[in-house]
Amino acid sequence: MRIAVDGMGGDKAPAVVVEGAVLAAKEFGYDIILVGNNELIQKELFKKKSVPKNISVYHAPEAIGMDEPAATSIRRKRNSSISIGADLLKGKKVDAFVSAGNTGAVVCAVTLKVGLLEGVLRPGIAIIYPTLKDLSVLIDVGANIDTKPEHLLQYAIMGNMLQQYMLGKERPRIGLLNIGEEESKGTDFIKRTHTLLNESPLDFIGNVEGGNIYTGECDVIVCDGFLGNVVLKVSESLAQTMTIFIKRKLKMNLITKLGALLSMPAFRALKKEIDYSEYGGAPLLGVDGVCIIGHGRSSAKAIKNAIREAGQFYTLQINEHIVAAIKGMQKENNNG
Amino acid sequence: MRIAVDGMGGDKAPAVVVEGAVLAAKEFGYDIILVGNNELIQKELFKKKSVPKNISVYHAPEAIGMDEPAATSIRRKRNSSISIGADLLKGKKVDAFVSAGNTGAVVCAVTLKVGLLEGVLRPGIAIIYPTLKDLSVLIDVGANIDTKPEHLLQYAIMGNMLQQYMLGKERPRIGLLNIGEEESKGTDFIKRTHTLLNESPLDFIGNVEGGNIYTGECDVIVCDGFLGNVVLKVSESLAQTMTIFIKRKLKMNLITKLGALLSMPAFRALKKEIDYSEYGGAPLLGVDGVCIIGHGRSSAKAIKNAIREAGQFYTLQINEHIVAAIKGMQKENNNG
Repeated sequence: MRIAVDGMGGDKAPAVVVEGAVLAAKEFGYDIILVGNNELIQKELFKKKSVPKNISVYHAPEAIGMDEPAATSIRRKRNSSISIGADLLKGKKVDAFVSAGNTGAVVCAVTLKVGLLEGVLRPGIAIIYPTLKDLSVLIDVGANIDTKPEHLLQYAIMGNMLQQYMLGKERPRIGLLNIGEEESKGTDFIKRTHTLLNESPLDFIGNVEGGNIYTGECDVIVCDGFLGNVVLKVSESLAQTMTIFIKRKLKMNLITKLGALLSMPAFRALKKEIDYSEYGGAPLLGVDGVCIIGHGRSSAKAIKNAIREAGQFYTLQINEHIVAAIKGMQKENNNG
Repeated sequence: MRIAVDGMGGDKAPAVVVEGAVLAAKEFGYDIILVGNNELIQKELFKKKSVPKNISVYHAPEAIGMDEPAATSIRRKRNSSISIGADLLKGKKVDAFVSAGNTGAVVCAVTLKVGLLEGVLRPGIAIIYPTLKDLSVLIDVGANIDTKPEHLLQYAIMGNMLQQYMLGKERPRIGLLNIGEEESKGTDFIKRTHTLLNESPLDFIGNVEGGNIYTGECDVIVCDGFLGNVVLKVSESLAQTMTIFIKRKLKMNLITKLGALLSMPAFRALKKEIDYSEYGGAPLLGVDGVCIIGHGRSSAKAIKNAIREAGQFYTLQINEHIVAAIKGMQKENNNG
């Protein structure tokens, strides 16, 4: 297994990425190719006590900033770590590409260079997140904001395969994010999507509201990339805001301060449970290769877990399952 | 001041509504007209030790359920508490109408019967919510899902007036909910809205992401009703989910249980701070009358606060300010 890792991606690159890659190389034994500025990456590697032999560096002189416009930066910076990472994936020099860099640029580079899986119309970013029950999948959280009902149907199929083969749900329940549960609710776009999902062989349980995202009633929730992106960011921000609110209040008096001290292990355990870094990164589904997008704020552990996830995604042949499922459904439609 | 209150609205109507109305009648001295099934409401009033004289009942034999389709139910149930409440507002028999009932039905009834303010194109539901800084306004959270850029511009104007005259912000900062801060981000619809807001005399600070909703960088955030509704419901649900997660973890062992016990006052204080019921209800902006929509799960206190809010909204002449602001902007456009 050979995995390319964007050495320049993320808020604390390359230090944190190098650390995560070293951890992953030791723990999983994959061949890891750090793509990025050779000098900067070697400097970080030099700081480590021991560097496993299955880590190497592929020089990419340029880097794309977290806030650079995606399409332009990919067009202009052909020698950026993201562009070269996508090139390596395209040329099958690696089995997977992991980046915690500029999400838009990663989506753009991988889609343009590697292309889409047979039958897939648009790529979608899936996040795997904890609910009150099990892990759920929300797709798309920002790859595609010019969305058609057919794209959402395919997101449902792709999310279904991810749940089934990666998370082990035998028959995932699929929901459509809407503003009410009744079939008549929502925009025309949503109603047309509802019809498509209803006619599909998927276990479509119907519309779900924003309030159902974290209850775990659905295993896969589909929405357009604009909505999904806002939902993702609101959720992250609200979890942080609540933590700040709680901390402020716990400073109320000596008793609550003592209470906070004693409760600390519980909060630490909770942080671990809801921490995105435990789950790795977000798979970019629909592209003809394995690509995992890490959070910009990824820690070394998050990078390590994203690399493990990339390896699993490859081994479990998720993409092959997606192609077969989409073919199967097209065949059914042609016969139907 | 005469305020009609939907006696049949909310999950625990009429009991909780009657209790809230009695509290409000005593505390604020408004004339309160409970609209709904006379027998059921009288029964609840009978349970009270003392009923203030400024409370009366207006019989409405029908009630619209929380999940009934909005438009149909308003057309069919002309004698429902919501329809009659809207009729009273239309006929200027009351100065304001408060309902914690079926939101869609309230929007539909009030918009159809009372009509829109001069110059206003679409109504919008505004929520007032706590951030890490001050109270902010998010509009629209579900009145209008067939949104045009001009509607969002008007939402910004209406939210601006609400912040300025009700919450006391001299020059509210307005943000447009988007998936990135750069001007080039988002759908065509969002880009056209961005241009309109940029050309307006409002203090438009540009695009804001989902992550900025709770930080308080903006005083008013505008978005279409579909997005706003999902954001609202995700937020409510996530806050609840986090509470459940925290409670589960605090049961870890004896020490964390003791910690939880000692921290309790802090959590209670927090609950009060972030509790929607402290802020009353959500004003339906753009209609030619005062209408406050309460949460379906409203407590008696929430009903009381929604009634207070309705009184303030009327006294502070928010609607007159909205009409003047929209006229002023149209004049400017004609001259420009």
